[in-house]
Amino acid sequence: MISVGIVGGTGYTGVELLRLLLRHPDVQVSVLTSRTEAGKRVDDMFPSLRGHTDLQFSDLDMNVLKHCDVVFFATPHGVAMKHAAELVAANTKVIDLAADFRLQNLQQFEKWYGLEHSCPDILTESVYGLTELNREKIKQAKVVGNPGCYPTTVQLGLAPLFKSEQELVKPASIIIDAKSGVSGAGRKASLGMIYSENADNFKAYGVAGHRHHPEIVEALENISGQSGVFDQILFIPHLVPMIRGMFSTIYVDLTEQGQNTDLQSLYEIFYADEQFVDVMPSSSSPETRSVRGANQLRIALYKPQPTKLVILVVQDNLVKGAAGQAVQNMNLMFGFAENAGLTGIGLLP
Amino acid sequence: MISVGIVGGTGYTGVELLRLLLRHPDVQVSVLTSRTEAGKRVDDMFPSLRGHTDLQFSDLDMNVLKHCDVVFFATPHGVAMKHAAELVAANTKVIDLAADFRLQNLQQFEKWYGLEHSCPDILTESVYGLTELNREKIKQAKVVGNPGCYPTTVQLGLAPLFKSEQELVKPASIIIDAKSGVSGAGRKASLGMIYSENADNFKAYGVAGHRHHPEIVEALENISGQSGVFDQILFIPHLVPMIRGMFSTIYVDLTEQGQNTDLQSLYEIFYADEQFVDVMPSSSSPETRSVRGANQLRIALYKPQPTKLVILVVQDNLVKGAAGQAVQNMNLMFGFAENAGLTGIGLLP
Amino acid sequence: MISVGIVGGTGYTGVELLRLLLRHPDVQVSVLTSRTEAGKRVDDMFPSLRGHTDLQFSDLDMNVLKHCDVVFFATPHGVAMKHAAELVAANTKVIDLAADFRLQNLQQFEKWYGLEHSCPDILTESVYGLTELNREKIKQAKVVGNPGCYPTTVQLGLAPLFKSEQELVKPASIIIDAKSGVSGAGRKASLGMIYSENADNFKAYGVAGHRHHPEIVEALENISGQSGVFDQILFIPHLVPMIRGMFSTIYVDLTEQGQNTDLQSLYEIFYADEQFVDVMPSSSSPETRSVRGANQLRIALYKPQPTKLVILVVQDNLVKGAAGQAVQNMNLMFGFAENAGLTGIGLLP
Amino acid sequence: MISVGIVGGTGYTGVELLRLLLRHPDVQVSVLTSRTEAGKRVDDMFPSLRGHTDLQFSDLDMNVLKHCDVVFFATPHGVAMKHAAELVAANTKVIDLAADFRLQNLQQFEKWYGLEHSCPDILTESVYGLTELNREKIKQAKVVGNPGCYPTTVQLGLAPLFKSEQELVKPASIIIDAKSGVSGAGRKASLGMIYSENADNFKAYGVAGHRHHPEIVEALENISGQSGVFDQILFIPHLVPMIRGMFSTIYVDLTEQGQNTDLQSLYEIFYADEQFVDVMPSSSSPETRSVRGANQLRIALYKPQPTKLVILVVQDNLVKGAAGQAVQNMNLMFGFAENAGLTGIGLLP
Repeated sequence: MISVGIVGGTGYTGVELLRLLLRHPDVQVSVLTSRTEAGKRVDDMFPSLRGHTDLQFSDLDMNVLKHCDVVFFATPHGVAMKHAAELVAANTKVIDLAADFRLQNLQQFEKWYGLEHSCPDILTESVYGLTELNREKIKQAKVVGNPGCYPTTVQLGLAPLFKSEQELVKPASIIIDAKSGVSGAGRKASLGMIYSENADNFKAYGVAGHRHHPEIVEALENISGQSGVFDQILFIPHLVPMIRGMFSTIYVDLTEQGQNTDLQSLYEIFYADEQFVDVMPSSSSPETRSVRGANQLRIALYKPQPTKLVILVVQDNLVKGAAGQAVQNMNLMFGFAENAGLTGIGLLP
Repeated sequence: MISVGIVGGTGYTGVELLRLLLRHPDVQVSVLTSRTEAGKRVDDMFPSLRGHTDLQFSDLDMNVLKHCDVVFFATPHGVAMKHAAELVAANTKVIDLAADFRLQNLQQFEKWYGLEHSCPDILTESVYGLTELNREKIKQAKVVGNPGCYPTTVQLGLAPLFKSEQELVKPASIIIDAKSGVSGAGRKASLGMIYSENADNFKAYGVAGHRHHPEIVEALENISGQSGVFDQILFIPHLVPMIRGMFSTIYVDLTEQGQNTDLQSLYEIFYADEQFVDVMPSSSSPETRSVRGANQLRIALYKPQPTKLVILVVQDNLVKGAAGQAVQNMNLMFGFAENAGLTGIGLLP
Repeated sequence: MISVGIVGGTGYTGVELLRLLLRHPDVQVSVLTSRTEAGKRVDDMFPSLRGHTDLQFSDLDMNVLKHCDVVFFATPHGVAMKHAAELVAANTKVIDLAADFRLQNLQQFEKWYGLEHSCPDILTESVYGLTELNREKIKQAKVVGNPGCYPTTVQLGLAPLFKSEQELVKPASIIIDAKSGVSGAGRKASLGMIYSENADNFKAYGVAGHRHHPEIVEALENISGQSGVFDQILFIPHLVPMIRGMFSTIYVDLTEQGQNTDLQSLYEIFYADEQFVDVMPSSSSPETRSVRGANQLRIALYKPQPTKLVILVVQDNLVKGAAGQAVQNMNLMFGFAENAGLTGIGLLP
Repeated sequence: MISVGIVGGTGYTGVELLRLLLRHPDVQVSVLTSRTEAGKRVDDMFPSLRGHTDLQFSDLDMNVLKHCDVVFFATPHGVAMKHAAELVAANTKVIDLAADFRLQNLQQFEKWYGLEHSCPDILTESVYGLTELNREKIKQAKVVGNPGCYPTTVQLGLAPLFKSEQELVKPASIIIDAKSGVSGAGRKASLGMIYSENADNFKAYGVAGHRHHPEIVEALENISGQSGVFDQILFIPHLVPMIRGMFSTIYVDLTEQGQNTDLQSLYEIFYADEQFVDVMPSSSSPETRSVRGANQLRIALYKPQPTKLVILVVQDNLVKGAAGQAVQNMNLMFGFAENAGLTGIGLLP
């Protein structure tokens, strides 16, 4: 039984962490902080938790957090990096669900997040928490940068192609037409987020540039070992009138080698031992509701033209795309079963 | 062709007024004010208006507004009453879509809206704009207080009973179980309004007391000519995960006379000449989508027990419950056809 | 570890049973039948189950079912009663999620369901499965009739009043204004159920009479020990554009004794030991999303007038209103922990 | 005043035609047929029409239809072609909203629709009703094949590029990632269409091939005057949990000439005189709700990379994508103002 702290428990990733961790067999949530709600019971804010916890929000107190075995940051960008060094020094592990430890490129970080990084040395030692691709490093990590939701779908959707020893696809051709439910924008009072602005409506957003673009580029460079070839990829996110769910439609041009490869088998073999990545049979059409509430990502492949591959990827943005993957990383870091606390089945309908 | 001003054009009732007035054969919208958006084109904020208007938001300037024939206030409570006297003096008519001219009882107004009324004399002369019930007075009015959305359903749902010369129902037994789409709460950045808090969810709200309760009581007193008998009615509003639409389920106990009266006929006769009030056949079940976008209210009656009447009422809260009824009142005040600009058919599906 | 059969696994209560039972520590789902899908893998139909089961639908074979310890019927009305006797004879327990064992009154059953009951003797011995109210009988039962979803909210919402030794309320005054998500209508191809007919829409239905009305009446008679006094209650169901969730707003007139009783305490004490019934503090407003996916029912009380009580009740119609309560009953029948398999926290947002 | 008949008035395009035509200044709807609902009032089926029409559904009677000036077919594929010749002979014009007169290629028609074409000669003389691109031919047409909803967005989204005298883009690179509201699938009882299967869910469909693919290819060939170069385009449709609305994200690779062309100006000039096609300013993000209920299509352009163009297109699938464009075509065929009956503003929110 380890002791867990959560900094920033009033957002959607915070309450999702609680949903998972309060049922986790190996952990005890000891601390839950909020700048604005200290003293309030968490189940007053989130009535779904009534009967499941007596926790109250508290002010962020480093002396308390340092007694935790691990601290999750479900905060805005820029908070975790202020406290990570002190926690690491106290032997407390850190899992950041914001972007502070996602990009190794400091210039990109400052450009896209408008923040100077306050602990570049910790960043260098930190591990990017895309579990399936970085498992061994995560086991040893003191600080994990939990991936963005969109980048998770893109990396797991493309990894088998770029981890292959052969050149199967043309990197510059990649187009990611991504769609997200509204909860991805978080729990904050904003005119653009209100019900009547989003229900029965569909739109693109961030077309001029989205923070997950540099993360995707850096991640694909790391996966493939190639740099400079992914700068031209297109990433266009759209907003879907649903609460949870993320769907990426990824288009790639195949090389001749790619055209002659059994890509369905390639994917099935690549993910054969992964319980949270499901390669569906070739005639399948994944639906976001098939993973609602579950730490699961599903992939289906299509070849509508001999030279083109379409990869469909779904996940729940709050689970495999955020809190669930964070718990999966924690399980690795502490030697728990990788699926501990993550065995829930998706809610359908 | 009259000249129309709209004060507060950035809310949902404002844009709905524009949708109706830009297609009205007898009016020209000349001024549209906004405290925060002056100088901005209205179709930048509401792209549905692109191609239909070149209007820009302007600051509230009384010298400009006084040249209008009529000014609509689609503002928060308390704005119209500050300007009404000056406009009336300039011979400009006023239609307030907020609550400043709904309640004649000043104590109730101050209690529920937290505001001291700044022009009680204008209030006394103003007319309550429930069109079907106050038509003759509205024709003569200089200032009209447009009814609240819930009170509109309740008054039109109950009027035939209380306008009867006989005592058909027991006033104290009235229960109004009301349901509204989210647009009724307006267009404002508020945590409680965001998509992920309202979609796929149903709840009651304002159970401890809602501002439309005193309006309903005062209105029923006026309709029935009885005072003191409606204080015990229950009014419980609920929030439905839909954009537009309002549904009131009204329960009343029938007197012996009421039990022996053909109430279906009573309603049909009462509303025989009303084009915007539809008494449906007795086996009908009204749906909110049947009035989506239309200035229409539909009523159906049930008698599940000999002593009890259930009245189902639907409207679009933004049209018959707000902007549409306001235009209907304007039509009366200026001698236009009552349905001018209001003949649109509801959007189904 | 007991062996479980499910008859009729292609509906929403069927897949919800699977979601719960596949994670239940004490059971093994051995058989899953479907008239139409025999031979098909269940996760082909419900992709949320991919990775969680290899089960295939099979034809209904009594020789197989008789080897189960318990068989759930998630079938249309009239199926369970055909097979119950044979299963009971084979010492296999039966839990019917349809209506075959809900009403003891055979005339009412035939009137509302259009079916002659084929095993009235088994019916007499069967137990009505409202867990919290019939716990001791359910422990001994061979056949359990799982309650309807609406009746569950009404009974748990009213039980403390009618189990009291005092006359607190006037039975004839009860009005139940109920609202349900669309999944309550099941998984079947029907024009009235399609997305474009239900989204962004609200309506009443079954106003002329709903099958849950006689069940509510019989149940309240059993709870109160009074007969004949509930015939006049009103029950008006409405359809909400959401998938899961049920909300009942119950209105009752208080007797003088009721007006002088601390009803909040009465409810809190009555349900003090019930983990699946949550009496919320008096200023609360329950939301359906607080129980999405959870075997939980929440109650809040209001007294808007001294003589009137309003009871708000929420549940997930597929869990506490169907499959969850069925599993809770199974737990009692086999001596498992009552919450085995039912500890999941609701999905919010 | 012309006399209009509608064959197949019980679907969503049928009721949408009625919504528009009942308010059209120059037409009278005389006949409305239905195989299944003959004798029923249309406002019994569609309560939004109560108060707007006394029409009843009738059996399809050619002797009656031949007295109409124009007949709309809002029927399944294959109906219009059976009756077109007889109507044309009687001097009655035909507008088919199904696919019978969309594809000139008979082999493609038979392959995708499984029907042998019964009047190839009429087909040859018919005109493809993409109004903005075929205006002059439509004015003279006796039979118009109204375009599919997706093809409308694609053609209007790409026409300025392919109508240019220069080669601006690489045809084989075109990728259309399209998204539609559920009403596009029509009004029919089908399990896949029910609310609980579609709400809060997102998925691709028809990935293995969609009937609109050959229509898009043939149309682009006609627009560009090039054949054979569009066979490789990708068209992947997705289903959005909303009622109305269609959004196409179109990706194209630019030639060097295309990279050096001011495409924003190209589009603005191309559509300068089109009131129903709106080229938005370059920083815009179109939303489907901006055209809800309106005969309007909006386009926005992005160049996220120097060599790549992204074209965003929105329309209401039932209006500009079906019934609205059909009325626009009728207006041309009879010399009415092109916007007659089509001036309604979109419903926002």
